[in-house]
Amino acid sequence: MKTGTQIQENIKTNISEIINLFLKVRKQTNDICHPLLIEDYTIQPIIDVSPPKWHLAHTTWFFENFVLIPSKKNYRAFNPGYNYLFNSYYESVGERILRANRGYLSRPTIEDIYNYRMYVNENLLDFLNSNGLITTKILKIIELGINHEQQHQELLLMDIKYILGTNPLFPAFLNSENTNEHPPEKPIENYLDMAEGIYEIGYSGNEFSYDNEKEKHKVYLNSFRYLDRLITNQEYLEFIEAKGYEDFSFWLQEGWEWIKLNNITSPLYWHYSQKQWHYYTLRGLKPLGYHDPVTHVSYYEADAFAKWKNKRLLTEFEWEVVAKELYKVIPENANFLEEGHYAPVPRKNYSTQLFGDVWEWTSSAYLPYPGFKIAQGALGEYNGKFMINQMILRGGSCATPKNHIRFSYRNFFHPDKRWQFSGIRLAENLK
Amino acid sequence: MKTGTQIQENIKTNISEIINLFLKVRKQTNDICHPLLIEDYTIQPIIDVSPPKWHLAHTTWFFENFVLIPSKKNYRAFNPGYNYLFNSYYESVGERILRANRGYLSRPTIEDIYNYRMYVNENLLDFLNSNGLITTKILKIIELGINHEQQHQELLLMDIKYILGTNPLFPAFLNSENTNEHPPEKPIENYLDMAEGIYEIGYSGNEFSYDNEKEKHKVYLNSFRYLDRLITNQEYLEFIEAKGYEDFSFWLQEGWEWIKLNNITSPLYWHYSQKQWHYYTLRGLKPLGYHDPVTHVSYYEADAFAKWKNKRLLTEFEWEVVAKELYKVIPENANFLEEGHYAPVPRKNYSTQLFGDVWEWTSSAYLPYPGFKIAQGALGEYNGKFMINQMILRGGSCATPKNHIRFSYRNFFHPDKRWQFSGIRLAENLK
Amino acid sequence: MKTGTQIQENIKTNISEIINLFLKVRKQTNDICHPLLIEDYTIQPIIDVSPPKWHLAHTTWFFENFVLIPSKKNYRAFNPGYNYLFNSYYESVGERILRANRGYLSRPTIEDIYNYRMYVNENLLDFLNSNGLITTKILKIIELGINHEQQHQELLLMDIKYILGTNPLFPAFLNSENTNEHPPEKPIENYLDMAEGIYEIGYSGNEFSYDNEKEKHKVYLNSFRYLDRLITNQEYLEFIEAKGYEDFSFWLQEGWEWIKLNNITSPLYWHYSQKQWHYYTLRGLKPLGYHDPVTHVSYYEADAFAKWKNKRLLTEFEWEVVAKELYKVIPENANFLEEGHYAPVPRKNYSTQLFGDVWEWTSSAYLPYPGFKIAQGALGEYNGKFMINQMILRGGSCATPKNHIRFSYRNFFHPDKRWQFSGIRLAENLK
Amino acid sequence: MKTGTQIQENIKTNISEIINLFLKVRKQTNDICHPLLIEDYTIQPIIDVSPPKWHLAHTTWFFENFVLIPSKKNYRAFNPGYNYLFNSYYESVGERILRANRGYLSRPTIEDIYNYRMYVNENLLDFLNSNGLITTKILKIIELGINHEQQHQELLLMDIKYILGTNPLFPAFLNSENTNEHPPEKPIENYLDMAEGIYEIGYSGNEFSYDNEKEKHKVYLNSFRYLDRLITNQEYLEFIEAKGYEDFSFWLQEGWEWIKLNNITSPLYWHYSQKQWHYYTLRGLKPLGYHDPVTHVSYYEADAFAKWKNKRLLTEFEWEVVAKELYKVIPENANFLEEGHYAPVPRKNYSTQLFGDVWEWTSSAYLPYPGFKIAQGALGEYNGKFMINQMILRGGSCATPKNHIRFSYRNFFHPDKRWQFSGIRLAENLK
Repeated sequence: MKTGTQIQENIKTNISEIINLFLKVRKQTNDICHPLLIEDYTIQPIIDVSPPKWHLAHTTWFFENFVLIPSKKNYRAFNPGYNYLFNSYYESVGERILRANRGYLSRPTIEDIYNYRMYVNENLLDFLNSNGLITTKILKIIELGINHEQQHQELLLMDIKYILGTNPLFPAFLNSENTNEHPPEKPIENYLDMAEGIYEIGYSGNEFSYDNEKEKHKVYLNSFRYLDRLITNQEYLEFIEAKGYEDFSFWLQEGWEWIKLNNITSPLYWHYSQKQWHYYTLRGLKPLGYHDPVTHVSYYEADAFAKWKNKRLLTEFEWEVVAKELYKVIPENANFLEEGHYAPVPRKNYSTQLFGDVWEWTSSAYLPYPGFKIAQGALGEYNGKFMINQMILRGGSCATPKNHIRFSYRNFFHPDKRWQFSGIRLAENLK
Repeated sequence: MKTGTQIQENIKTNISEIINLFLKVRKQTNDICHPLLIEDYTIQPIIDVSPPKWHLAHTTWFFENFVLIPSKKNYRAFNPGYNYLFNSYYESVGERILRANRGYLSRPTIEDIYNYRMYVNENLLDFLNSNGLITTKILKIIELGINHEQQHQELLLMDIKYILGTNPLFPAFLNSENTNEHPPEKPIENYLDMAEGIYEIGYSGNEFSYDNEKEKHKVYLNSFRYLDRLITNQEYLEFIEAKGYEDFSFWLQEGWEWIKLNNITSPLYWHYSQKQWHYYTLRGLKPLGYHDPVTHVSYYEADAFAKWKNKRLLTEFEWEVVAKELYKVIPENANFLEEGHYAPVPRKNYSTQLFGDVWEWTSSAYLPYPGFKIAQGALGEYNGKFMINQMILRGGSCATPKNHIRFSYRNFFHPDKRWQFSGIRLAENLK
Repeated sequence: MKTGTQIQENIKTNISEIINLFLKVRKQTNDICHPLLIEDYTIQPIIDVSPPKWHLAHTTWFFENFVLIPSKKNYRAFNPGYNYLFNSYYESVGERILRANRGYLSRPTIEDIYNYRMYVNENLLDFLNSNGLITTKILKIIELGINHEQQHQELLLMDIKYILGTNPLFPAFLNSENTNEHPPEKPIENYLDMAEGIYEIGYSGNEFSYDNEKEKHKVYLNSFRYLDRLITNQEYLEFIEAKGYEDFSFWLQEGWEWIKLNNITSPLYWHYSQKQWHYYTLRGLKPLGYHDPVTHVSYYEADAFAKWKNKRLLTEFEWEVVAKELYKVIPENANFLEEGHYAPVPRKNYSTQLFGDVWEWTSSAYLPYPGFKIAQGALGEYNGKFMINQMILRGGSCATPKNHIRFSYRNFFHPDKRWQFSGIRLAENLK
Repeated sequence: MKTGTQIQENIKTNISEIINLFLKVRKQTNDICHPLLIEDYTIQPIIDVSPPKWHLAHTTWFFENFVLIPSKKNYRAFNPGYNYLFNSYYESVGERILRANRGYLSRPTIEDIYNYRMYVNENLLDFLNSNGLITTKILKIIELGINHEQQHQELLLMDIKYILGTNPLFPAFLNSENTNEHPPEKPIENYLDMAEGIYEIGYSGNEFSYDNEKEKHKVYLNSFRYLDRLITNQEYLEFIEAKGYEDFSFWLQEGWEWIKLNNITSPLYWHYSQKQWHYYTLRGLKPLGYHDPVTHVSYYEADAFAKWKNKRLLTEFEWEVVAKELYKVIPENANFLEEGHYAPVPRKNYSTQLFGDVWEWTSSAYLPYPGFKIAQGALGEYNGKFMINQMILRGGSCATPKNHIRFSYRNFFHPDKRWQFSGIRLAENLK
């Protein structure tokens, strides 16, 4: 059993680590936004997409509201009106602006928001460096705030892509990379096997994880096989050309109604013009990259594609078992946010492709694991209350911070959403 | 291996059985509708609720369209315009009237529809009694049609209840039973245990079952315990009186938005008037029966109630394991449609309550089992295409035909639906 | 100045007249509904169209609520719940069912409603025949109730036509007349002149009229000329074939948006099938009658047609001046409801066509006349509160009771409505 | 009759005048926007309100599209994509961005737009100063473009007020004026008389006017009297405190539904907080100025207020007759845009108040005058196609450029709109 002094020592070490992480992640958020022009920060073209300045402020509000206001002595809120503006969905923290109205705020200005970020950073450092009593509970909230900000880093890239990619002028966010785009070629289909049996699922270590990854528990899986890579744009284009969007037999009923209502005939950001397929990436509008993993597809499209191929998607349990079988740790060279591609890339040398690039739709609904417990208070609103009508995605994407992902990490979206970097892996039963 | 003659013998036996079943179920549908007045047959107060005459015609159309037209020589459709009017959702069978417009058809008249039913009955009997070659495949379609009609028998009672129960005059469908309603009393909470382990789920016999009940497969379950009865109106009223509808911490986010948007503060059909709670049953508006199982709650409400109780719902796998543990066959005296209560009833003598009365919301999403295969053609549109955004309910209700239900039977509704006879059973983990 | 006795004498005479009128009109309503089947009475396919049984009950409620309940001693309401069900829009008479929900009431039954009508009739006669003091004010309310019921007679025919005419089976309401439909021929365009000057508009006599026809007042009109007949189906077809629905230059902006949103390319009830235009009339689906006056067009369509012809519609003032110039009294043989055609008919022998057949859209907005005064109480809600966003129509139609119309009669509809029997007359300025 | 040379001379004079006017108005637009921050230029909080940068670009597009592209030799469009972005509603000029999506464009940037304005200005000057043949027709289009831009100057102020005034932080657009707000006092009600008779309405001079102000024509008016000033905030507050928003008897039916649906209980920009009424002006949130003319009321509210006062609004004809009676020319000191108040101000010394301050709702619908002719081509889409469902306002406001208004000027809005500077004048019949 630890003594009080030992615990204090541990906390001091932790404080030092957490300050480093906090500063790094806060800076990373600003760096992501660096290429934006002032005009880009404010608009909200669809309800799902928040204005970049909202993300910058909301992640800051999280630290102010859950750490500084309750715990830092004599802390004065930067602007008391910001709680109304930058609370996202925490019912327990009071009234907030309607989500659909986030794009109607020209003020506070971008400059105000960056000042807000600095003010909160300085106060948080001041607080952590003070001799005041920093409890483990407070450190855990800050750790959650850092992870929360990493999630918003991915959301920032998704939302920036939507804001610029649906503008009729198709402005580029970044300068072009040199790409040596190759012509279509026959894709290689290599399936790997997994044996029937009992497997363990979920997080059980001591590092940070979300509540929805627990408790660790056993599942029974039938044998199956899975493709060792992601589906490419070329393969998805074959589905389009085979009139897959016109044959209801491949579609879930609600998916069929969704494509008809919204006149959907290709992934988001694809445009057919001058007899050629193009796609918008954060580097501008380009001819379609045939060997890139397909992305910006909804669950409905992923599922329909799989049915057209006479295959299926993996469950989230199968995916986690596969990941743990293939890797001891998450591979260093996977295409995460830090790589700076901000787009999925073709796999190299026929290597196995699993983490990074695109989130893989699984056929599992977002539901609690056995023994799931909701945290107390506002932080308990983080995950559990969304466990309905959403599907699980696994593996992280080119917009996910590298140290944010885990084997047990569960992402989730409604089946019609596709502005996230989502993609497809096929699987089938082994007889 | 069977000879051709043996197969023919089997089919003949089957034909005779199927004729009996067909006639019985077709008559049962008419019997259910017998108390309706002509005016009640035509309206559609919400999109979910179809006019009773539509059910009568649609179930008939099923036999005409999938059996008589393709297989009976020289068959003449009763009215070629009916395909457009009475197809429900079979995309492969062509254009159909919008679901929302079913209540805008004053014609065909009720008399026309009953004539349509007789015409198809006679033609089907004629077909089955002919010396023509009746294949096993055709018999399977008729068997499916019979099961389909049984499902619509339950829908008829749900829809009739909605049509009359939302009329400001609250007309009774049936005469009152003598009820000796008892005052509230402390409910007994008896929980039964189930051990951790591997269990088998799904249908594997030779009788009729739906495709969504297959394949039989193994699941791993943690130990748990479950209430041996359904939650009562009295217990649910305590939730209301404890202001459960006003505390978001019990609610899924989409559930919270749903109750706020629709101003929901009690189960469907409950009315507070003259300082007393009443509820509409098919026998009219009555003072609330405290010991009845609560019904007409959405998944959101069932889940919120369970959270308020610090418990949870069963998964569909746990439910099936419980059912198989408790019973060898479905108990004879369970409160199904044939009992004629058309409402859940208080359990008697503290007996275990599982089948009948109300469909029990489970915490499982409606998803395919491992190895699930969609049937070919229009009949493949029966189940698989609905496997998104719906939750599983188990056990049958007071409106379910007795021989329609199975241990492995999976019913499913969207989480906001509550015009079905749905109810609540609590469970929790065993540590 | 009249003595008290004289007034009483007058009232007695009036009572006798009003009893006759009351009985005649009440019977006429029932007669109109006679061909309906029970199923036809209950549905409401669009919000504008009320179920026929609602009209039967609402007109009855008017007498019960405004005469019997306030004035008849010891009167007992037929059913106290009916006030909620059959109030149309009188805010001062309390809560009422939402207009959109009128079609969700299977009860009260048709039989109940006819009993309600008889009950109120008997009570009203009993009241009028009693020796009680019947004031002039009460007689005026009954007179208004009779006129109100006549308006609903027209609405009944409009709504019945919509209910049957949008049913995919196109059932006939009445047996066919022998029609000798003639082929298209060149229409004769005869324009009549009207001189510039000051004219008097509005009602000033002692008979019944609505408040919106007063006060009589002067207007100054420029000289103009007008077609001596209505536009025919043949002429309107030329507009369609000239692609008038595809050229925005003929359309008001809101009209253009309306036809695009609703995919409107012809008048209501027109169908192109088997290479021929058909139209639904209350006698079933028929080949288009070329020489019938066109009907079931919106204001947008009437206005666009006129612009395409390089003409314009009349103002309501011009129309009234024309009517008074052409006729001393409303012509006996005009095609009103009592003729029983229930459809506009071709003009005979090139006679001038003005009253009856179809309501003529004018280019005047529905606004108060100088000196307009709103009546006190609930009856003040009859006309004035609708004086916004509607356009005036003049002249009565084939569904208007003959003794209901006046030279000064102002009908009004929103510019997108077209389930009324509305038509087109052209005019132009005289230079 | 003029010779060719004379016409050329006239045109040269006109060119010089038009250049001056063009430069002045173009600069005035930029000046209006000067206090905006970059963030303010881009958002569209409701469909009626366009982003300021859209106005800046659209008014520029008008000159580019209707003058430079068709008439200036070798003119190169600044950016061919701008036609799609900055066309407002001209169907004849091709596809355009949906009005509701104007706020979803972060690019082009503000800098781009100002460059666009300069580029078009320079090209237009170059064109006008060239020796090319400038026709009267072209000059008339430029004149229309200048008037069009003046209209957008008023729209800019309306939209800026909405963008900042609905922001929860209530940022001021301009620095505060010194206001010496006086407490409530009894308002003086002075009514002026107008005699019955024939009057002339409409424009007939040689200066610029819109097509909707013609042809000049006679109307017959009854005698009436009118208040010599506008209704003040204090008077309107009395209506609120008398529960005018809760008594349907004052309201048009559609107005009543509108206030209930939108929960409207005061004019736009009014806020009750800390036991006091405040209102947002372009100088920030302030205590209500009691003696200011009330503004930002809908037609429904203006009409209900008048009914509550047992008065009525003027017709547009009465208003024009009054204006011509009171003034020979529009008074120099009226409160128009150039005064820089950007808000209505209390009248001084009980002087008659007519032009400027607020647009006065009239009881006239926006309809064509006798003899109205729509211009050819795209410019014909300017006025006529909006002549439905809108009401006329007269007199100009504090946001109207002084030399833009005329005695015959007809402004028009839908009856539920109130983000314009709209107000109330009362009138009544003279017996």
